[in-house]
Amino acid sequence: MKIPLILLTNDDGYNAKGLSSLLNSVKDFGEIVLIAPDRPQSGMGHAITVNNPVKCKEINYFEGINAFNCSGTPVDCVKMGIYLLNGRKPDIILSGINHGSNVSTNILYSGTMAAAVEGALDGIPSIGFSLTDFKEDADFSYAEKIVKLITGKVLLEGLKTGTCLNVNIPNVNENKIKGIKVCKQGKAFWEDTFEKRKDPLGKDYYWLKGSFTSKDEDKETDINYLENNYVTVVPSQYDMTCFESVENLKKWKL
Amino acid sequence: MKIPLILLTNDDGYNAKGLSSLLNSVKDFGEIVLIAPDRPQSGMGHAITVNNPVKCKEINYFEGINAFNCSGTPVDCVKMGIYLLNGRKPDIILSGINHGSNVSTNILYSGTMAAAVEGALDGIPSIGFSLTDFKEDADFSYAEKIVKLITGKVLLEGLKTGTCLNVNIPNVNENKIKGIKVCKQGKAFWEDTFEKRKDPLGKDYYWLKGSFTSKDEDKETDINYLENNYVTVVPSQYDMTCFESVENLKKWKL
Repeated sequence: MKIPLILLTNDDGYNAKGLSSLLNSVKDFGEIVLIAPDRPQSGMGHAITVNNPVKCKEINYFEGINAFNCSGTPVDCVKMGIYLLNGRKPDIILSGINHGSNVSTNILYSGTMAAAVEGALDGIPSIGFSLTDFKEDADFSYAEKIVKLITGKVLLEGLKTGTCLNVNIPNVNENKIKGIKVCKQGKAFWEDTFEKRKDPLGKDYYWLKGSFTSKDEDKETDINYLENNYVTVVPSQYDMTCFESVENLKKWKL
Repeated sequence: MKIPLILLTNDDGYNAKGLSSLLNSVKDFGEIVLIAPDRPQSGMGHAITVNNPVKCKEINYFEGINAFNCSGTPVDCVKMGIYLLNGRKPDIILSGINHGSNVSTNILYSGTMAAAVEGALDGIPSIGFSLTDFKEDADFSYAEKIVKLITGKVLLEGLKTGTCLNVNIPNVNENKIKGIKVCKQGKAFWEDTFEKRKDPLGKDYYWLKGSFTSKDEDKETDINYLENNYVTVVPSQYDMTCFESVENLKKWKL
């Protein structure tokens, strides 16, 4: 059996604990290549670096692992990782483990999930993993079991071409976990505001502050199941067409 | 009849010609508030600024227009614009006119379209406009007619809640335009590489270079119609769930 080639990345930066945990989970599953941002890149969504060059360097941060950091975004890291593989195609791309959840519409804002979606765009089975704990020293020990289980299953079964998985893991004691639910992306939104401050020169600046709010009554969603202590798995794809509206708008006779 | 409140933004920056053209197209349609990045923000996708503050200042760049520039991304601009409106909700958000097309999977990379998707997330009818010409002095005169036509129609008819339009306009002489097609997002992808260079200190750096490639045989797509000199309109939404895979993955019994 061919040894799987596994590309790892994240959005919290190469030195985040969650990435070490991801590596720890799968390092025996195949050949690992790791490339991650050289600084935190949370909230970068599907951004790529187009007006500037990126830097990329080999690092010895992970013992015995072929690893790089990159000045770009998580999506840049995926592109750069594939470039560095020089024609070899990863069998799977894993992103995370993110410090903080990425359920619902956060798939759009999340650098972790954008890296997985970029993998899907390249036709590579990809998974983004997130734990509902923002802390730097979050406990990923149960999350590592989930990474092993789901990565193993995807390596065995594959994914539909053009899809990736958005996996979220509740930060509760393992004996409180109710199970794993395959479900859909919930409808929830950031209710944003900004906190206005003055810099030392008296000029205004603003900090974005949001609260994530769901009014979705549907229960078959990631946001609902995660709140109820399930691990959630949302298969995700990149076609954003609203097909119902295509038919309706044709009647406009533009 | 209530005068529409129209929020304008873009990703090429407040001083891009395409934004002036957008403003010129719709300034008589209602009350305008304009907020755009203070520098080019192409390729920023749905990025938001979470680890840094943003600056925002009123500008006199557009005569008689309530206008601001912002140090953040296009999505930050939408969030900041809504914040500055202090409880008033825009009737429509318009983004563009982008210098360069945004068909197919570019909806993920495009700051122009991310601003429109952000509007959709807020339940505000939104439209991103793009012209297939990257040049700074591109000719937007025909594009302005399309902006007027489609914005007028959306103000009259509305859009399904949670959707926006991705409008692309071919850069050809008006008499070569074959019509307007409502269609779906095509399947096309960037085949990326990087150009490796050395900086004056001898360190490597890389420029991302891609060619956008379609192998989609389906003809009902934006990429096909745009190539054939149609204006394309793709109604877009933000649920990225692959529903077919939800059913299939439930059989995994995770």
